[in-house]
Amino acid sequence: MIKLYYAPHTCSLASHIALEEAGAEYSSVRIDFAKQEQRSEEYLAINPKGRVPAMATDRGILTETPAMLAFIAQTFPRARLAPLEDAFAFAQVQAFNSYLCSTVHVAHAHRMRGYRWADDPAAIAEMKRKVPESVGACFDLIEREMLEGPWVMGGAYTICDPYLFTLAQWMEADGVDPKRFPKVADHRQRMAERPAVRTAIAEELG
Amino acid sequence: MIKLYYAPHTCSLASHIALEEAGAEYSSVRIDFAKQEQRSEEYLAINPKGRVPAMATDRGILTETPAMLAFIAQTFPRARLAPLEDAFAFAQVQAFNSYLCSTVHVAHAHRMRGYRWADDPAAIAEMKRKVPESVGACFDLIEREMLEGPWVMGGAYTICDPYLFTLAQWMEADGVDPKRFPKVADHRQRMAERPAVRTAIAEELG
Repeated sequence: MIKLYYAPHTCSLASHIALEEAGAEYSSVRIDFAKQEQRSEEYLAINPKGRVPAMATDRGILTETPAMLAFIAQTFPRARLAPLEDAFAFAQVQAFNSYLCSTVHVAHAHRMRGYRWADDPAAIAEMKRKVPESVGACFDLIEREMLEGPWVMGGAYTICDPYLFTLAQWMEADGVDPKRFPKVADHRQRMAERPAVRTAIAEELG
Repeated sequence: MIKLYYAPHTCSLASHIALEEAGAEYSSVRIDFAKQEQRSEEYLAINPKGRVPAMATDRGILTETPAMLAFIAQTFPRARLAPLEDAFAFAQVQAFNSYLCSTVHVAHAHRMRGYRWADDPAAIAEMKRKVPESVGACFDLIEREMLEGPWVMGGAYTICDPYLFTLAQWMEADGVDPKRFPKVADHRQRMAERPAVRTAIAEELG
């Protein structure tokens, strides 16, 4: 059975929602960042990166949100969470998720985790200052060019949707006004009403 | 027919090598960063992100290296560039490539493209100063935990290999001593000898 390692308010929510959407049998383990559990010897044996999410499967551990989301879609094909029979359409799904992990999440991370890329407190503060601009530019591109609507890929709900929803939830804290992005805001609203999303969030915050 | 948009010394080399390994019929278009061609109206119509790589297919444009690599593997299955019939093994391939795009490439980008995340020249200089440490930590994890050898995933050459090779080539310029990472250095050497790699590099630098 799948076991998801997650922390509230992190990108692990995307995989959590996808497992719910898939109707997967799974258990979940909360990693307490306040107690630095992600750096514990026990957790580093599971994920040497010291981050969430990670997912234990019968075959071993998986990490990295885009990989986990595609794995969930492939493992539970009846949930139809990705266009698995169409290499081009699947690549479009993957390109969207890759943009989220390599550009959007990275822009966001400069607000709280600037220490990854600088030591000087003034530089870390300067990175934090620019986050509304850099994250805002990402959502501007998503709004204009990427989000087909009503779901990311158009009519079909896919593994892009829980991932976008997860990162879009951080917008206010990043100093980005959601009113600038009506399609993204509409997507968030529609996502928030889905039973799978409610269940995943309730479990994480409960 | 596939058309690859690339720029020398960028991560587009990974897709270029993969197309060669796949035996794909393709053409390539060099985007001249010195002339800011990636910001031209013509190129932004192809890739609104203003980056390379991008790939034109009969179905439309694809971007993002991990997505393009998986697409190449799926489109040319006889080249066996990924374990397409095994969702867990495919997810491991994807997790590795996702780590490269979201963590390794991002650490590297703080040397030349710090302006993405800060405006103050002092902050940009401080980011640049830390690159040997942050990129070095990435390759340390790859060396210790990820690179099975002789190829990334073990005995089988996959789409992880051209991507790792591409990013590992930047190590010296990033101030990281390749001697610290004998498995990665061995992998680079073995990659450099492959005909597909020689062909792609010769075309890009020719």
